[in-house]
Amino acid sequence: MNYCSHCGNPVTHRIPEGDNRHRYVCDHCNSIHYENPRIVAGTVPVWNGQVLLCRRAIEPRHGYWTLPAGFMENTETTVEAAIRETREEALAEVEVDGLYTMLHVPHIDQVHMFFRARLKDGTFGVGEESLDAQLFPLADIPWQELAFPTIRETLERFVRDTETGEFPLHIGDIRYRMGK
Amino acid sequence: MNYCSHCGNPVTHRIPEGDNRHRYVCDHCNSIHYENPRIVAGTVPVWNGQVLLCRRAIEPRHGYWTLPAGFMENTETTVEAAIRETREEALAEVEVDGLYTMLHVPHIDQVHMFFRARLKDGTFGVGEESLDAQLFPLADIPWQELAFPTIRETLERFVRDTETGEFPLHIGDIRYRMGK
Ligand SMILES: [Zn+2]
Ligand SMILES: [Zn+2]
Repeated sequence: MNYCSHCGNPVTHRIPEGDNRHRYVCDHCNSIHYENPRIVAGTVPVWNGQVLLCRRAIEPRHGYWTLPAGFMENTETTVEAAIRETREEALAEVEVDGLYTMLHVPHIDQVHMFFRARLKDGTFGVGEESLDAQLFPLADIPWQELAFPTIRETLERFVRDTETGEFPLHIGDIRYRMGK
Repeated sequence: MNYCSHCGNPVTHRIPEGDNRHRYVCDHCNSIHYENPRIVAGTVPVWNGQVLLCRRAIEPRHGYWTLPAGFMENTETTVEAAIRETREEALAEVEVDGLYTMLHVPHIDQVHMFFRARLKDGTFGVGEESLDAQLFPLADIPWQELAFPTIRETLERFVRDTETGEFPLHIGDIRYRMGK
């Protein structure tokens, strides 16, 4: 951030009076420009014991497999965002069950939330931001080609929990990036 | 938003190519300025069966009672944000139990999350953004003087769930503002 989005003058990066964190501050119009973490919402879409993954057509991690997920937009709920992303990336309609993982990714200022979901009728396709979409039996998940740590963590838990049939909410922190 | 925070030129509000939502777009440097919902994180701090509330010293809802809560900051987790807000507003150290309510407030682009928590040693005080802090027996919660709908919803559930001793996660939507 270089300029004040309100008045167009240059901003400075300093601790405002009465605060204890650095902010982008405009000394012309006195605006303080706060920056806050963003929510990524997605689903674990299941059909006949298989999970629907998409192969990313965009950076970062072009060509890698992901659960359908993306940034939550203003005016929607996390559940609506998860359903919308599943529709956009996998052309699939889902019924959402509970919140399954909430994973903080503090080094990139994101919170990833995945909801368990069932395909309504088994149909899906390849959305604009995907190269491919495919149902994977749990034994065939492409572990070496997953896009992000939060995808891996969510799928690892899903495979384990499927054995017991219990899917408790897991809240955790991810503090690493994917290797090559 | 009037000006591009990257280059300082005026922005326009339109649907960028390949998108389906209005964004603030800079036609000079081609930046797209996305806006996303913010997370408010807080606790339901309990001590000897009583719940700790703070009376707000700031707008909005100056003078009304709230659970300690505030905007999650970059580089922290929701749990860390909830603990920090409890420290800042009620000068109280807490042990956090599970996530208890996640309430979407789409008309103000917020997601409110409350964690159940226990005061570590029963001590607390009045933080800079509070006029007062007080432990309330559940029978004496000031229902008519609560600051926000998400506080009311969380406390109503907490009172009901205390009767059964089960505190399942509740995910819901709040689509109204407090009356006078
Ligand atoms: Zn300004
Ligand atoms: Zn620009």
